[in-house]
Amino acid sequence: MNQTIQDILKRRSIRAFQKRLVPEDDLSAILEAGLYAPSAVNEQPWHFTVIQNKDMLAELNVKTKDLLKKHPNPLFRNSGKDQEYNIFYHAPTVIIVSSQDDALVPQIDCAVATENMLIAAQSLGIASCWIGNVKWLFETAGDEYKTRFKLPQGYTPSHGVSLGYSAIPAVQAPPRKGNAINYIK
Amino acid sequence: MNQTIQDILKRRSIRAFQKRLVPEDDLSAILEAGLYAPSAVNEQPWHFTVIQNKDMLAELNVKTKDLLKKHPNPLFRNSGKDQEYNIFYHAPTVIIVSSQDDALVPQIDCAVATENMLIAAQSLGIASCWIGNVKWLFETAGDEYKTRFKLPQGYTPSHGVSLGYSAIPAVQAPPRKGNAINYIK
Repeated sequence: MNQTIQDILKRRSIRAFQKRLVPEDDLSAILEAGLYAPSAVNEQPWHFTVIQNKDMLAELNVKTKDLLKKHPNPLFRNSGKDQEYNIFYHAPTVIIVSSQDDALVPQIDCAVATENMLIAAQSLGIASCWIGNVKWLFETAGDEYKTRFKLPQGYTPSHGVSLGYSAIPAVQAPPRKGNAINYIK
Repeated sequence: MNQTIQDILKRRSIRAFQKRLVPEDDLSAILEAGLYAPSAVNEQPWHFTVIQNKDMLAELNVKTKDLLKKHPNPLFRNSGKDQEYNIFYHAPTVIIVSSQDDALVPQIDCAVATENMLIAAQSLGIASCWIGNVKWLFETAGDEYKTRFKLPQGYTPSHGVSLGYSAIPAVQAPPRKGNAINYIK
């Protein structure tokens, strides 16, 4: 099995990070991997805001948790109430992915770009986690963060990627569901 | 730059395929890469139908083009009318990705799984193209294909992935858009 497929299979969502930052060269390579994702009719409808400012990360965490506390789904409501829970798992670097509002399939293209970044991170020994929960904040206060993230006109923040060094032993992949492939030959 | 990042950066959408099939081992590795994508709350809400049946591929092409001919967007309408255009670019293997209807973010998770397959294919020297256009067919005749693809209950076909060997010289990536990254330090 080649290195690339090994990285794809070994990549896991890591939910505990060391404090040390990833080197700038590695961060640049991860971002470049995102930029080279395919997109519908080559719109490249993504924007990445790299946040290493502790105050901003703390604010996004607190405000998202305040919203999660009121979420109709008990799974999310319990996360919001959990004192130990940090939405970014204390990663020292978070990339916020924003999508171009008038693109053909912006959410799909941004998902693809995000996966490129997760795999690139894995290949560099850098742990990552896709942070979906921050979307609750952007759905209610998106306009504020468009300004504060200095996004280009017509982009809306969508989700985050936590990046850093894992603070826990290797994580095993949960079992795959069966019956996921069939053939028409 | 490591092999994985090279594969991510070098992967291109290829729109001309040779007739020869990819080896079964490579196909299995590509599918496994898809299965190991991350997904929201680990739902793994995807299903892959591997189609190598020429009649089925021809039928999906003709029916999709009939719908494209009536599409409101002239870009798609012109594709439908183009005699030379085959929606799968004549790839001998197509993976149809179906998503679980009641998952949290099925389209996003399926996009991520698809990108894993595209990168895995690249790492094996196999050309690929994400086929979004077939969604017009599934949006109008999805129930028929749920049955004919023998999908598990509660899944709907979404899009395709053409797989095979490129019939054209290496393709250069189109330039990346500028102003796609900023920093909050």
